Amino acid sequence: MSSDTAGKTITCKAAVAWEAGKDLVIEDIEVAPPKAHEVRIEIYYTGVCHTDAYTLSGKDPEGAFPIILGHEGAGIVESVGEGVTNVKVGDHVVALYTPECGECKFCKSGKTNLCGKIRATQGKGVMPDGTSRFKCKGKELLHFMGTSTFSQYTVVADISVVAVKEDAPLDRVCLLGCGITTGVGAATITAKVEEGANVAVFGVGCVGLSVIQGCVINKVGKIIAIDVNEKKKEWAEKFGATDFVNPMDLPQGTSVTEKLIEMTDGGCDYTFDCTGNVSVMRSALEACHKGWGTSIIIGVAAAGQEISTRPFQLVTGRQWKGCAFGGVKGRSQMHEFVENYREGKLKIDEFITHRETLKGVNQAFQDMKAGDCIRCVVDMRKM
Amino acid sequence: MSSDTAGKTITCKAAVAWEAGKDLVIEDIEVAPPKAHEVRIEIYYTGVCHTDAYTLSGKDPEGAFPIILGHEGAGIVESVGEGVTNVKVGDHVVALYTPECGECKFCKSGKTNLCGKIRATQGKGVMPDGTSRFKCKGKELLHFMGTSTFSQYTVVADISVVAVKEDAPLDRVCLLGCGITTGVGAATITAKVEEGANVAVFGVGCVGLSVIQGCVINKVGKIIAIDVNEKKKEWAEKFGATDFVNPMDLPQGTSVTEKLIEMTDGGCDYTFDCTGNVSVMRSALEACHKGWGTSIIIGVAAAGQEISTRPFQLVTGRQWKGCAFGGVKGRSQMHEFVENYREGKLKIDEFITHRETLKGVNQAFQDMKAGDCIRCVVDMRKM
Repeated sequence: MSSDTAGKTITCKAAVAWEAGKDLVIEDIEVAPPKAHEVRIEIYYTGVCHTDAYTLSGKDPEGAFPIILGHEGAGIVESVGEGVTNVKVGDHVVALYTPECGECKFCKSGKTNLCGKIRATQGKGVMPDGTSRFKCKGKELLHFMGTSTFSQYTVVADISVVAVKEDAPLDRVCLLGCGITTGVGAATITAKVEEGANVAVFGVGCVGLSVIQGCVINKVGKIIAIDVNEKKKEWAEKFGATDFVNPMDLPQGTSVTEKLIEMTDGGCDYTFDCTGNVSVMRSALEACHKGWGTSIIIGVAAAGQEISTRPFQLVTGRQWKGCAFGGVKGRSQMHEFVENYREGKLKIDEFITHRETLKGVNQAFQDMKAGDCIRCVVDMRKM
Repeated sequence: MSSDTAGKTITCKAAVAWEAGKDLVIEDIEVAPPKAHEVRIEIYYTGVCHTDAYTLSGKDPEGAFPIILGHEGAGIVESVGEGVTNVKVGDHVVALYTPECGECKFCKSGKTNLCGKIRATQGKGVMPDGTSRFKCKGKELLHFMGTSTFSQYTVVADISVVAVKEDAPLDRVCLLGCGITTGVGAATITAKVEEGANVAVFGVGCVGLSVIQGCVINKVGKIIAIDVNEKKKEWAEKFGATDFVNPMDLPQGTSVTEKLIEMTDGGCDYTFDCTGNVSVMRSALEACHKGWGTSIIIGVAAAGQEISTRPFQLVTGRQWKGCAFGGVKGRSQMHEFVENYREGKLKIDEFITHRETLKGVNQAFQDMKAGDCIRCVVDMRKM
């Protein structure tokens, strides 16, 4: 199988972030063909995530412009460069901002999903050979998180893409590219929550709801969801939370930590921060049970912010951890997520509260900031 | 087997801490007989530890006076109260400031050594029934850490004592009551360091040297000892460290964290803080390898001090933990430590740099503050 466009530069539409703090602009861009060990994907659908908004805001000190954002995308392989063996033209795929080479020190360790192979270039917004595949008005555009899914065509490293079954709808499984996988993985792969455990989940967005799902899959006991937005109670319960705490509703002088310790007879076995707020991260740690309670940081904090606690919290047996992409190895573990979805064990459809076309991508960012949005999926092929 | 003194109050010598910041005073004290589930021990030898000095200094906000300090002691059971079955008169024993009841939520969890059964009363300086067994000049004296080994006779809860083989010399195994067990346990039980791992140990005192021993027992790769006292290099190497870093000797602008990351090709698999200094704790965490490096806090920080770091350190896979008494369950695991000593696998004798008599206990505190002292053992039966 081959395509007419293979080996040629493709001109297509993309949402370009020209500068920090400004709306994205729909532009005609040129996407160069994939070089060796690269894959060009026609992106069908992409989610919009807080990390995109964070970089666009200019608050990320490592964010550079102009750039094509987007990292929660799915589509179909248009062409592949030399030496690519893991996907082929026509494959349905999900882009992976956390690659998996299987060969580096990290991949070989068996202890982490943080592949090191293309970390340096990905962080700089270029392909592994140090150059970009995107051009617009004669200017090179940067890649984002190795994925840049806000373009109708994108080029990624072959280790940054995984094929999924053709009957898995791309407008749903695109969300496995970030939030859902992150939350479920944090619970089932990073924390390995056990049957009967008591869990607290701080922040009921896409990631928090996914942590709740992971806890349901692993049959934990109490799942206490915490959010200052009362509307999230219904959402949390829909996904399987057994309890909901709104810190705003607590009696004066009662902290959320105290409340959780009381509700769980001494503290939670596992807590998850899905807020990115460093003071919430502290509450999450301190709500853990003495002796073994483990707190997992998932949320990304603003630049320069620090977490802190008394060391006594750790000396008395609490553990502080974190994870990126839930600790999930995208290429070797994504199929489990897709299977769980196909078998009805993993909710994806329920996350999609909003849909936009490519032209509506800025509206998708607005939607996300509104409290009633969980995920907005952008149809990249509709203007 | 019984003793003439069973059931009677014993008058003996003890080093009493009448008030914060003052020398201990050798006094004649009265030691009441053990009540139900209590054990009266004739203390033969006791170590002196930084925790004793910390409480004596008055800096411990929970420290109360007058009190009999000391928690690293060994001796022989003089008499037992009703219902005691785990030790009998004449048994050689080590006192345990971390008890093990085997029945509470903590003990049953299999996840921690922090027995909860007598925590509240132990923290208040009294026996489980809420009263003291010590009197001096008509005044009640408080118990310390459930052990109070700076008395020729002490009373402890039966869950706070473990019998050891009679041929294990009490003037050595007393040190298994705290520092050595803490360090070895932190490495082998809490961290479970593996063969070939790279390890950094911050602070080369009794605990740090014991962490090094634990690493040697588990056959790790590099063992990098860090101390600002150059004299500790020789000590560290004697116990098996492969490298020594004196942060004072690093070129300006190079942090100890950077140095360790360079020495270990990306960071340590395990780091241990044995200093109690919160900024060292941060360095120890940040010297861990991305993806899996684990830092264990052993040192006790001064009241009110906090640890901090960027959450990114955890999100990228480092883990922050801690332990008390090395995570060792005193009653069920102490025998392994004694066996390892008897078989020559665990060094104890080498730690003893100073010896004092009971009258010299204040000198023992002075010795400890001098850099050339690792452990001072006090002979409680000699004045």
